[in-house]
Amino acid sequence: MSDYDLVIANGLAATATDTFRADIGIRDGRIVAIAEELEGGARTIDATAKLVLPGGIESHCHIAQESASGIMTSDDYYTGSVSAAFGGNTTFIPFAAQHRGQTIADVLKTYDDRAAPKSVIDYSYHLIVSDPTEAVLKEELPAAFERGITSFKVFLTYDLLKVEDEQMLDILTVAREHGALTMVHAENNALIKWMSARLMDKDYSAPKYHAVSHPRAAEVEAINRGIALAGFVDAPLLIVHVSTEGGARAIADARREGLKIYGETCPQYLFLTSEDMDRPGAEGAKFCCSPPLRDTETQDVLWRYLQTGGLQLYSSDHAPYRYDETGKLVHSKDPTFKQVANGLPGIEMRAPLLFSEGVRTGRISLNQFVSLTATNAAKMFGLHPQKGTIAVGADADLAIWDPDETRTVTAGGLHDNMDYTPFEGLEVTGWPVTMISRGRVIVEGGELLADAGQGTFLKRAPHEPAGLSGRTPPELDPAQSFGAKIV
Amino acid sequence: MSDYDLVIANGLAATATDTFRADIGIRDGRIVAIAEELEGGARTIDATAKLVLPGGIESHCHIAQESASGIMTSDDYYTGSVSAAFGGNTTFIPFAAQHRGQTIADVLKTYDDRAAPKSVIDYSYHLIVSDPTEAVLKEELPAAFERGITSFKVFLTYDLLKVEDEQMLDILTVAREHGALTMVHAENNALIKWMSARLMDKDYSAPKYHAVSHPRAAEVEAINRGIALAGFVDAPLLIVHVSTEGGARAIADARREGLKIYGETCPQYLFLTSEDMDRPGAEGAKFCCSPPLRDTETQDVLWRYLQTGGLQLYSSDHAPYRYDETGKLVHSKDPTFKQVANGLPGIEMRAPLLFSEGVRTGRISLNQFVSLTATNAAKMFGLHPQKGTIAVGADADLAIWDPDETRTVTAGGLHDNMDYTPFEGLEVTGWPVTMISRGRVIVEGGELLADAGQGTFLKRAPHEPAGLSGRTPPELDPAQSFGAKIV
Amino acid sequence: MSDYDLVIANGLAATATDTFRADIGIRDGRIVAIAEELEGGARTIDATAKLVLPGGIESHCHIAQESASGIMTSDDYYTGSVSAAFGGNTTFIPFAAQHRGQTIADVLKTYDDRAAPKSVIDYSYHLIVSDPTEAVLKEELPAAFERGITSFKVFLTYDLLKVEDEQMLDILTVAREHGALTMVHAENNALIKWMSARLMDKDYSAPKYHAVSHPRAAEVEAINRGIALAGFVDAPLLIVHVSTEGGARAIADARREGLKIYGETCPQYLFLTSEDMDRPGAEGAKFCCSPPLRDTETQDVLWRYLQTGGLQLYSSDHAPYRYDETGKLVHSKDPTFKQVANGLPGIEMRAPLLFSEGVRTGRISLNQFVSLTATNAAKMFGLHPQKGTIAVGADADLAIWDPDETRTVTAGGLHDNMDYTPFEGLEVTGWPVTMISRGRVIVEGGELLADAGQGTFLKRAPHEPAGLSGRTPPELDPAQSFGAKIV
Amino acid sequence: MSDYDLVIANGLAATATDTFRADIGIRDGRIVAIAEELEGGARTIDATAKLVLPGGIESHCHIAQESASGIMTSDDYYTGSVSAAFGGNTTFIPFAAQHRGQTIADVLKTYDDRAAPKSVIDYSYHLIVSDPTEAVLKEELPAAFERGITSFKVFLTYDLLKVEDEQMLDILTVAREHGALTMVHAENNALIKWMSARLMDKDYSAPKYHAVSHPRAAEVEAINRGIALAGFVDAPLLIVHVSTEGGARAIADARREGLKIYGETCPQYLFLTSEDMDRPGAEGAKFCCSPPLRDTETQDVLWRYLQTGGLQLYSSDHAPYRYDETGKLVHSKDPTFKQVANGLPGIEMRAPLLFSEGVRTGRISLNQFVSLTATNAAKMFGLHPQKGTIAVGADADLAIWDPDETRTVTAGGLHDNMDYTPFEGLEVTGWPVTMISRGRVIVEGGELLADAGQGTFLKRAPHEPAGLSGRTPPELDPAQSFGAKIV
Repeated sequence: MSDYDLVIANGLAATATDTFRADIGIRDGRIVAIAEELEGGARTIDATAKLVLPGGIESHCHIAQESASGIMTSDDYYTGSVSAAFGGNTTFIPFAAQHRGQTIADVLKTYDDRAAPKSVIDYSYHLIVSDPTEAVLKEELPAAFERGITSFKVFLTYDLLKVEDEQMLDILTVAREHGALTMVHAENNALIKWMSARLMDKDYSAPKYHAVSHPRAAEVEAINRGIALAGFVDAPLLIVHVSTEGGARAIADARREGLKIYGETCPQYLFLTSEDMDRPGAEGAKFCCSPPLRDTETQDVLWRYLQTGGLQLYSSDHAPYRYDETGKLVHSKDPTFKQVANGLPGIEMRAPLLFSEGVRTGRISLNQFVSLTATNAAKMFGLHPQKGTIAVGADADLAIWDPDETRTVTAGGLHDNMDYTPFEGLEVTGWPVTMISRGRVIVEGGELLADAGQGTFLKRAPHEPAGLSGRTPPELDPAQSFGAKIV
Repeated sequence: MSDYDLVIANGLAATATDTFRADIGIRDGRIVAIAEELEGGARTIDATAKLVLPGGIESHCHIAQESASGIMTSDDYYTGSVSAAFGGNTTFIPFAAQHRGQTIADVLKTYDDRAAPKSVIDYSYHLIVSDPTEAVLKEELPAAFERGITSFKVFLTYDLLKVEDEQMLDILTVAREHGALTMVHAENNALIKWMSARLMDKDYSAPKYHAVSHPRAAEVEAINRGIALAGFVDAPLLIVHVSTEGGARAIADARREGLKIYGETCPQYLFLTSEDMDRPGAEGAKFCCSPPLRDTETQDVLWRYLQTGGLQLYSSDHAPYRYDETGKLVHSKDPTFKQVANGLPGIEMRAPLLFSEGVRTGRISLNQFVSLTATNAAKMFGLHPQKGTIAVGADADLAIWDPDETRTVTAGGLHDNMDYTPFEGLEVTGWPVTMISRGRVIVEGGELLADAGQGTFLKRAPHEPAGLSGRTPPELDPAQSFGAKIV
Repeated sequence: MSDYDLVIANGLAATATDTFRADIGIRDGRIVAIAEELEGGARTIDATAKLVLPGGIESHCHIAQESASGIMTSDDYYTGSVSAAFGGNTTFIPFAAQHRGQTIADVLKTYDDRAAPKSVIDYSYHLIVSDPTEAVLKEELPAAFERGITSFKVFLTYDLLKVEDEQMLDILTVAREHGALTMVHAENNALIKWMSARLMDKDYSAPKYHAVSHPRAAEVEAINRGIALAGFVDAPLLIVHVSTEGGARAIADARREGLKIYGETCPQYLFLTSEDMDRPGAEGAKFCCSPPLRDTETQDVLWRYLQTGGLQLYSSDHAPYRYDETGKLVHSKDPTFKQVANGLPGIEMRAPLLFSEGVRTGRISLNQFVSLTATNAAKMFGLHPQKGTIAVGADADLAIWDPDETRTVTAGGLHDNMDYTPFEGLEVTGWPVTMISRGRVIVEGGELLADAGQGTFLKRAPHEPAGLSGRTPPELDPAQSFGAKIV
Repeated sequence: MSDYDLVIANGLAATATDTFRADIGIRDGRIVAIAEELEGGARTIDATAKLVLPGGIESHCHIAQESASGIMTSDDYYTGSVSAAFGGNTTFIPFAAQHRGQTIADVLKTYDDRAAPKSVIDYSYHLIVSDPTEAVLKEELPAAFERGITSFKVFLTYDLLKVEDEQMLDILTVAREHGALTMVHAENNALIKWMSARLMDKDYSAPKYHAVSHPRAAEVEAINRGIALAGFVDAPLLIVHVSTEGGARAIADARREGLKIYGETCPQYLFLTSEDMDRPGAEGAKFCCSPPLRDTETQDVLWRYLQTGGLQLYSSDHAPYRYDETGKLVHSKDPTFKQVANGLPGIEMRAPLLFSEGVRTGRISLNQFVSLTATNAAKMFGLHPQKGTIAVGADADLAIWDPDETRTVTAGGLHDNMDYTPFEGLEVTGWPVTMISRGRVIVEGGELLADAGQGTFLKRAPHEPAGLSGRTPPELDPAQSFGAKIV
């Protein structure tokens, strides 16, 4: 009888803090031993000259999700999870999006039906709240939280999704009481609509004008507002897909003041610019996302904030709309920028791009890479220590990387259900070659070895780590001391 | 025949930049000569040991104005202008407030009827825009502008007044095209409503809780938003009644970036604190204004910004609601903070308080005092060089101050139509003793010598001084260069 | 008998705050009347279509001054003052520079001998203190102050001039006690020497490398240090010739904190860049000054700080070293950057450049122009209200400008003793055409009408304006409250 | 035969990122296995209900070091290392201090002689450089670096130690070339001397005035200067013992700009204030350290910077001068503040204080505690992954903590060679109870089980982690592009 179901031998392993050469022993889907040498594996994978990293956690992606206007993303939980796995991930957290009028229970039922039969990796959802009724606030969000859905996302833009400031205060307060994390898409809706109307008036309608229609000021304003609201009620807030220096600085400033504000950025803001949108015909549509692509100076700034911890998360914001009549061109073959669905695919390229351009160039360390692709998300979203690290007791979710393998990116080489990739033609060195989920090899030798539905739903812990202190937030007393500086 | 209708002799005169001993010769209501010695005055006032200053310009006051909920301020254009005159002012610019549904022509007609027969000093209005329909934006505001109403105020708070962000962009754009100045009451409506509801829920309802219901964060957020919107369309914006360090800093930062952002503060934020609200029964209501009173640290900060030019205006925000059933107690003898009309009287105390606590203590120079009480407002609101200074050609609007006279402030000693003053009991040194409007003595020896209606409406010039450059703002091209940093 | 010795009629006059059409009556060298129409002038100058401005005050220039290493600037008090006058100035304040070992009385005697027989305009000196011995601090500086020399300059760079931090604290403290103003050339000596050595080591020795040898960091560091020292002892400090964004921001930040910190910039930092230094052979030497020329981005930043009051002075830093063996080439015909005397001529171009590029383009108003060329310096250096404005009682120091005259700048067209101008070839619109000093016409029709020595020494008042408050700084108690935040 | 020399069983282990329940197997002084359950230990320690943490790394302490004026710290490498061990540490890095004139080889020989026979835990030195001659820079520092001394400390204050700015540039450049880390004691020497003289002049001479003699401005100035110099040559710099908000902010700002600047603070700045110095007679001397103790507001600020990564290190700055004639009172029984040796003991209290006040209160997580007491220092100083973590392959340096044990701090209860502790009387919960160094139990049951000299010298790796990138810093080209922004 073997001691271990699987041993990963001879690799160079890394966590968010350590890098060590060791064998890793797995039993019943969990890591049970890490040692200089392990014997007794039912199977042994030789990871000589390879890196053994925690499986990535893709915490920002749109899978099998209808946009508010009804366009479905092209990836379902099968193709989405397969693409994630080939990109080095063993967990993902797509969105479960409430349409107005819908109960949260309905929303979760819908997404459970979409995910459970199909996902090849473990998953949870962030709940998108677009209709925070009394019932949603008082009963349905707490019920979702009890189910382990411990993060709620709101939009400050998009007419059919956006919440008003008072609603956001309500949601932040509910989240705070339960230890849930609020996420926000922070762009000023009015600025965007106002600018879009003026562009259209002057016939600046080509897809590339999307970038101009979403000015930096719209993001910076909304980030400042989000911080003001969250800071006021002392609730944690994660600003997703930060694309501006002003936004990144506001987040870092707030943190310095002691506020629980976090920031995320995405590969498109590090590796693409708005100049990529300047293509003939409708092709600029392939690069329309919100917030939009910016410029190379901003890329440098965002790298710096990632390096020094001003931004804590790096996610794909995978929003796969094909370049055809089901996606980008659904309204027209020659769409205006207002007709183009916003979003780029990237779930499979997220980690390899960061490895190639971050670790190999020396911009970040291997440990920072692990933090940004796995550990920070695990901690932020209540999955740690089960996920996001290599430690005894953790799930055996591992990514074995060949740090020296070079591939040229093509749409055809990826495993999502897309007909293009915005990263087409890039040369990327360092790829995950073997993926292990709960101790089962799911990708190996370029082949998928997993079954649809083998991924399981993760009941997540609260965002706020209780730690030894068992700290719970003090009740908000609206008049705790009369005249107090309540900022 | 005399050379001058009036000569002010032997005084120490001051402008925003100079202080000089000279005689001032007046003819036909205007200053025609400034000289070491002037003879030939039909009348001569001896100003020995007195200061001769430009008449003050009170640019933020609510006269004969209904609140959105229908409460009338207690001062009409007679008592308001008389009180202003006794407080050292020769011009005031109250608001002409649009109720939703009302045309601008109607609004102006209403206020003309209220002002023309009554005012003893010259006046104009700022237009409050609460309903920026297509007609208002395209026709009515331009028409008002043509009439010399060159400043438009918007509110970001108060349900019946507030404009949405897109509406504010529209108004800013119209203002920019014409060279008008937009003014904004910047508080986040949602934060205030949300907080107020929670305070009421917990029975923190006494008037003093007004201060807590309008948190600093509400002001700072809205100022940041206002700056973002104005900066985006490259339009000038004046943030009125700044009461927070965060707000003042945001304004100064924006100016440093080259944006045309201006800030005003008021005597209540320099001389009172929220502790003044902590009084028995309903008396805290006497100190309810929005934004609310803060603390002594903030007073120090606001002084610094006045001293170094970070804030440019100092106005009373005179909003006279009596402490009786017509005003503060209209809804109840024991009102909750939500039932108390917001506003403090102060038109008569504005300049004397600044003189006593600013000039006499050495915090500001006499020239800065002139800037803050007269010149800056004249320039900001299109009245310079006719008003706001002592120069040949300017209107003979003069305030003769006794810098050494000390009085104790009492409600009874003031000339407004109020039954209390929030500054009751303060000892103030330095008072205007003789007031001259267009060459006519209107206050002397404690007596009013003016007739109702002798003040005239002032057709104001645009905000943006054309100067030698004749510069007009470039047309806004929404896509002037694709991908440009449009912030 | 005439009422006035001179009347300037029909001009458009301007002060730092006002612009008005008036006649100006002069008697006994002073302005005695300003009126719509004045008669009775012994002489009348018709200024129709002209501007009548306060004579400029050039407060930063090196006249008849040996550098620490013995090179004499090319202008003596005759050519220097004549050039200043043709450039719109009626007062200048060159430096009286102490060589180490020299008593202050000696220094002043030397400069009195140089100035008194020669200057055609009024003058004072700033004292450069390079050797603050006990006697200098306790007796000689106070004596100089009594003589009306109320500003002391120190250098933080140049081996033969620089003071150490403790010496600077001593000087700041003496200055503070008397109400004198300390000025500082703020560059880190070590950074410059270290960088210069490395450049020379690698044979980067051409004059143009001067720019690289004086990095931005050197200025920013020294400005921060100067602010720390002055702030610590609560003494006013003027940072001269600011050339970096970091430096300008540090000054504005300090002011916002309530510190008495002031900043100056110069035409070379607004109108030239380091690219101007990239010339063949020794010609780059013509553009060597310290701090060095920077870039166009910095120009924009400096304009913004001038516009919004973050920087208060604009001076030429006229340091005329000819492009020959007496000046720039004194050590070699093919000098290294270390052999080139630092300094540019500009006393005559200062005001016309600001008028042409500032007032005519709309970047600043005419009143700001007056502030920056005359009034601010008068106030800063204890000359106001005698100098720097147009007011009754002030000296009749006036500059009559033709705002529309266009000239192309050539070295030959200027009146200094130089053989080149760094502004050669620029087209400049707006020139002073008639200059009046204490009521005497000294320049008219392109001719000099003044005699050498007719300018008089100005006994200056303290820097700190006493105003009505008669405020004197509190004595510094080094332990005023134990543990206090003494920053 | 046993598989392991020692097994730590059943504890809750933590690294800087993970917390997990596991057994730890040790062989030949290193960790060779981490597993759910390990058998076969020659000895097993049951850590049920205990925490198993990486042994602390005390990276700032003065052991057997003469001050520049000749006073010896009271701890030698025996008592110092024993006290460190009882305080949870298994490695320390005292200073090897160069006296001027001394060769580096001499210095290291001296300290080797002091350390090798005595230390009970592993050690290295930081080299204090006070005399950077050509030989030191070109030969001796590189030789020390080759020996594994990869960090060099400089002082900007203390007459006998301080380096000038040019010397600091030289040292930074040498450090940069080799990948060494420069550390700096950043206080402005002049400000301190100047202020001290004035205090003494006015007879403010008691020990407590030490706090006033070292003003905040002195620290902030020197930190800004250090950052300017290090930033200029693109060299890493660690600012030690940060005690001011201004200093912490400058460091965080620099990091945000992409500079390699790091900051450390110490327990005395988190747990004591200058009010602790206000004691009768000489007793204030017990609290004299440089920079001095500040106030509670600053404590809060420093906690925030530790929490959000703005400061990265937390060290004791253990500088043990007894409260007797060998230490604090060496010059007098009633010393002035200038006669008191600067420094506090704290090597044994550092980690317990942080645990009690940081982890137990919820201010920081257990993982942050590990980072701040062990991992960050290991990485910063080239000891990782051998030291500072729990990972396979790392040295078996472990601290077993009882998180619930409460003790009251007394000088007698500590193991250093001191007669007082500044933390006397504090109640502290959470103590290390068993200490293991390279697999040997050195403290257990309150007893020392180690031999003098069993600790070994650690040859440290460079500061700059090469990582996968093998990145070496580009050669500094002083003129890489003419006119470039070299900041």
